[in-house]
Amino acid sequence: MSTETSTTITRAADLKQVPWRNGQGMTTEIALGGSPDDFTWRVSLAEVAQSGDFSAFPGIDRIIVLIEGPSMRLQLPGHTQVLRTDEPFAFDGGVPVQCTVDQPTRDLNVMTRRGAARATLDVLVLVAGAPPLVVPASGTVVLVVLEGQVRLADGDTDLQQGDVVVTEEQVGLTGGGRVAVARILPGPAGDQLGSAAGSRRQV
Amino acid sequence: MSTETSTTITRAADLKQVPWRNGQGMTTEIALGGSPDDFTWRVSLAEVAQSGDFSAFPGIDRIIVLIEGPSMRLQLPGHTQVLRTDEPFAFDGGVPVQCTVDQPTRDLNVMTRRGAARATLDVLVLVAGAPPLVVPASGTVVLVVLEGQVRLADGDTDLQQGDVVVTEEQVGLTGGGRVAVARILPGPAGDQLGSAAGSRRQV
Amino acid sequence: MSTETSTTITRAADLKQVPWRNGQGMTTEIALGGSPDDFTWRVSLAEVAQSGDFSAFPGIDRIIVLIEGPSMRLQLPGHTQVLRTDEPFAFDGGVPVQCTVDQPTRDLNVMTRRGAARATLDVLVLVAGAPPLVVPASGTVVLVVLEGQVRLADGDTDLQQGDVVVTEEQVGLTGGGRVAVARILPGPAGDQLGSAAGSRRQV
Amino acid sequence: MSTETSTTITRAADLKQVPWRNGQGMTTEIALGGSPDDFTWRVSLAEVAQSGDFSAFPGIDRIIVLIEGPSMRLQLPGHTQVLRTDEPFAFDGGVPVQCTVDQPTRDLNVMTRRGAARATLDVLVLVAGAPPLVVPASGTVVLVVLEGQVRLADGDTDLQQGDVVVTEEQVGLTGGGRVAVARILPGPAGDQLGSAAGSRRQV
Repeated sequence: MSTETSTTITRAADLKQVPWRNGQGMTTEIALGGSPDDFTWRVSLAEVAQSGDFSAFPGIDRIIVLIEGPSMRLQLPGHTQVLRTDEPFAFDGGVPVQCTVDQPTRDLNVMTRRGAARATLDVLVLVAGAPPLVVPASGTVVLVVLEGQVRLADGDTDLQQGDVVVTEEQVGLTGGGRVAVARILPGPAGDQLGSAAGSRRQV
Repeated sequence: MSTETSTTITRAADLKQVPWRNGQGMTTEIALGGSPDDFTWRVSLAEVAQSGDFSAFPGIDRIIVLIEGPSMRLQLPGHTQVLRTDEPFAFDGGVPVQCTVDQPTRDLNVMTRRGAARATLDVLVLVAGAPPLVVPASGTVVLVVLEGQVRLADGDTDLQQGDVVVTEEQVGLTGGGRVAVARILPGPAGDQLGSAAGSRRQV
Repeated sequence: MSTETSTTITRAADLKQVPWRNGQGMTTEIALGGSPDDFTWRVSLAEVAQSGDFSAFPGIDRIIVLIEGPSMRLQLPGHTQVLRTDEPFAFDGGVPVQCTVDQPTRDLNVMTRRGAARATLDVLVLVAGAPPLVVPASGTVVLVVLEGQVRLADGDTDLQQGDVVVTEEQVGLTGGGRVAVARILPGPAGDQLGSAAGSRRQV
Repeated sequence: MSTETSTTITRAADLKQVPWRNGQGMTTEIALGGSPDDFTWRVSLAEVAQSGDFSAFPGIDRIIVLIEGPSMRLQLPGHTQVLRTDEPFAFDGGVPVQCTVDQPTRDLNVMTRRGAARATLDVLVLVAGAPPLVVPASGTVVLVVLEGQVRLADGDTDLQQGDVVVTEEQVGLTGGGRVAVARILPGPAGDQLGSAAGSRRQV
């Protein structure tokens, strides 16, 4: 990473928390495109203490991934999705969603304004001793260390749990742990990116 | 399989086709619990020639799996699911669903009346030379040979593509191919079995 | 469950630990068919504190699943498998395997003597409020509660983390959490059950 | 794609076939880095008519994916892998592998010389009407259309089944079908990229 302009590292301790719209929990802001009230895209982390309804975000495509806790059940209008850890699920942020948890859990959310941006979300596993895992440059990439010790390849930066990297350049990762990778692309109007979390769609 | 009463084999050639409710295609009836117009459960196979809306089945839980064709896109009220071959998806049969295909495809459907029955659906792969794959007895089990040559273990029955077995006994399968396994259980009222097709929920 | 003879419940506190053959760790015995030194099948749980070689078990088919910790890397003679939580992997227990971990992890192991028995291993997720998850009777079934609170349906038995059920009858499970399900079948000679952990092979 | 120099399109009809080393089949050369007898990397497609042993490629890391046929069983020294369509599997090309098929199948192979290069392999599904699927630039990317009609976004190029794109630039794909994406990176010495095909490792 050659320039300050395209790569930003934020330490976990420097992230700020904001209250939920429905008042039932707290959210940690990870990264934001635009203003908080009228964002183009937003990556955030929620601590869900109990079952309840999700806040509605009309016009927003949303991808959620459970990062801590055994499971979470989301009841959408015509489909009930049981989330398991590290398996992303994409849905329309504007529809009513009832969320059931059996114990406190944490989830990561990527939201994009339909027509203005679209996103993919993946969870990578790093194992010590393996070659660097390469995350290609493509739009804006947001990395969140979920667990373990991660190092940016060809650099001097060590990342701990909760640390965040926002970049528009290719990065290589080494170390051991789990890293969430959100990729934000400027998007065409008119379609949900419903397949973003397809289990074998791997770019 | 000791008795005629609990295991029925129907050859592909003996299955009958019925028109769709919306008139846009044909369905092959595989197995039925109850009457066609007021079934408790129903397993059927559809040939989808073009994109269109699914017929609505209020009060019915539905699991679909694409068995031929590269993909199928289902737009539900708040979620767009891209189906890949052999990956089951469970949803509420009563909500509006828009189905997009790029070429003619075939899919298998398991429907259960909510409160009266519930189901799971899996696709097994058999490889020649492996030990028999055991399908335990549990409720009513419906097997459909999707591809290849399959033999019921400890018996004299060879099954070809499209052949159907309905049984309440444990069966073992050998040979090479793909077999859909629907399991129908008498069900408690009040909940969708939305997670029946979870990718790592394997009983 | 009608009889004492076919269902046994063992509480986590009553399980005993035994040293590894290679002396590098401890194993909790979960369930055993036969004697410890000449078992037909064995289910056990290992705490892996550091990287090292697996003990060799010639003539034994082995399925391993990581149940705690982000990942584990297994180097077999011609293949390196990165295990993620809850994804079973089957291999020949007799070949040299080098295991790399980045931090202490726990894994569950199912071993069967080739020719005398074979096994499958799955991890189920239970979500509160869902209908009972039915585990059909088929050979010997060993359930291990990995996380959460689980209740045997139609019974009075609550299970906590680490509790074990061994049964030859069908059981229903409710509650919230993760449960490992090993199924042991008397086996034909001559083949590894290499595909036991196939991601979409779900019986 | 702005220049001829970094993107090459080869039509299916212009690909050439070469005999297997062991004489038991035919291989279609897709793309090659280096000379045929001393390649740094190689992407090829094999038609497997019957069961048999794989040719040994010492010092070569190999990723295989079944693209046509219900299944293929690979017996490695300590592990038997059952391949299902579109699920890549990485192994050491130098170890003995016995391949069992029940009917003629086709598979795609990506080989890299250990220490000189490494690779990932994925199969993407495109559904008509969805936004372009973006394949980021990263090393050398080889695209093979497995099924359907695909169009390079922002360009005039239509691709049919069997057509190949080799590029070092980012590409967008639209249309409907399945596309294999191999990514070749210059590699560090000393490790197999065994985890390249991890089901949830999605970059």
